[in-house]
Amino acid sequence: MKTLDDTVNLLSRLPGIGKKTASRMAFYILRSNYDFAEALAESIRQLKSVVHFCPECGSYTETDPCPICSSPLRDKSIICVVEQPQDVLTIEASQEFHGLYHVLGGLISPLDGVGPEALTLDLLQKRVQRLQVKELVIATNPTVEGDTTALYIKKLFAEYSVSVTKLATGIPFGGDLEYADRITLAHSFRGRIAL
Amino acid sequence: MKTLDDTVNLLSRLPGIGKKTASRMAFYILRSNYDFAEALAESIRQLKSVVHFCPECGSYTETDPCPICSSPLRDKSIICVVEQPQDVLTIEASQEFHGLYHVLGGLISPLDGVGPEALTLDLLQKRVQRLQVKELVIATNPTVEGDTTALYIKKLFAEYSVSVTKLATGIPFGGDLEYADRITLAHSFRGRIAL
Repeated sequence: MKTLDDTVNLLSRLPGIGKKTASRMAFYILRSNYDFAEALAESIRQLKSVVHFCPECGSYTETDPCPICSSPLRDKSIICVVEQPQDVLTIEASQEFHGLYHVLGGLISPLDGVGPEALTLDLLQKRVQRLQVKELVIATNPTVEGDTTALYIKKLFAEYSVSVTKLATGIPFGGDLEYADRITLAHSFRGRIAL
Repeated sequence: MKTLDDTVNLLSRLPGIGKKTASRMAFYILRSNYDFAEALAESIRQLKSVVHFCPECGSYTETDPCPICSSPLRDKSIICVVEQPQDVLTIEASQEFHGLYHVLGGLISPLDGVGPEALTLDLLQKRVQRLQVKELVIATNPTVEGDTTALYIKKLFAEYSVSVTKLATGIPFGGDLEYADRITLAHSFRGRIAL
């Protein structure tokens, strides 16, 4: 059936969704009432037409600028620098950070031909100056590309009056020393803190 | 963000999709181009508006009657009786059966208050007579409800000139005796065939 095959093919392009799961999803939609299918279709459409990048920080937003950039309650002297828009939502969910964000839109990766000019670094420089930012917290993933990008940003702001910090790398809370890999363990030793 | 939350909530109502997978799916849609989101939304909408039940056999179809019921190549003297429409697609995928299908729309389950009158059995009786069907292959799941329904159908057609058979229950091909449960093993003994 063409309609069913089309839906299964499209659904299986989503991450973590194989043909089998996509089929089960399509059959669920077929069994469900018309309202659910209509609401799902409409929400997917809305998602792409309503949600866009905040012109200020680059995270996902429905308004211009985003609720975080326009909130009088957020500390404008500290900016958390992340790779991609969804990182903002991940960090927001932790309720640990109350400053602003800046989405780089990627990481420096010479092997993939991605240089610093591909990131939103000039915009970050302008924001740091305009908002008189005191601290940049680099929250890139603890990978080679993430660390390279963090170091690049540190150098870039060397002559600015802004301190550049980086999220701690170490054993996850609730984790087990036994299962921590060598590099994570090395990082957590180097980053050990006074009790 | 309301639009994002809406989509995540709707997606996580699909089977096998938790909040985390739904979020990843929504983010993928956000990152993808507009055409993909549009195609996905439209296919979900089409699925419910184009695909419906075949008035003849009760399986999913885009045409009336379905391609199987209207095919001159299918053997009209044998009907495979299944619980739900997607079972037809599962069996079709095996390319093992070349007769017609009949979807019961459920299984007899006294505990859930589902009696034989809730199933499409009167329609099946009419089809058996009209098409002069020689064999009914019951392909309900090998569960208590599936077996109860199979036995009920056997009794229902006792005075018809139609033989009623049931799919073999046993150890799955490629499976391991060691991991077969006691009941499956008992079934495969009872259903043993001459070599």
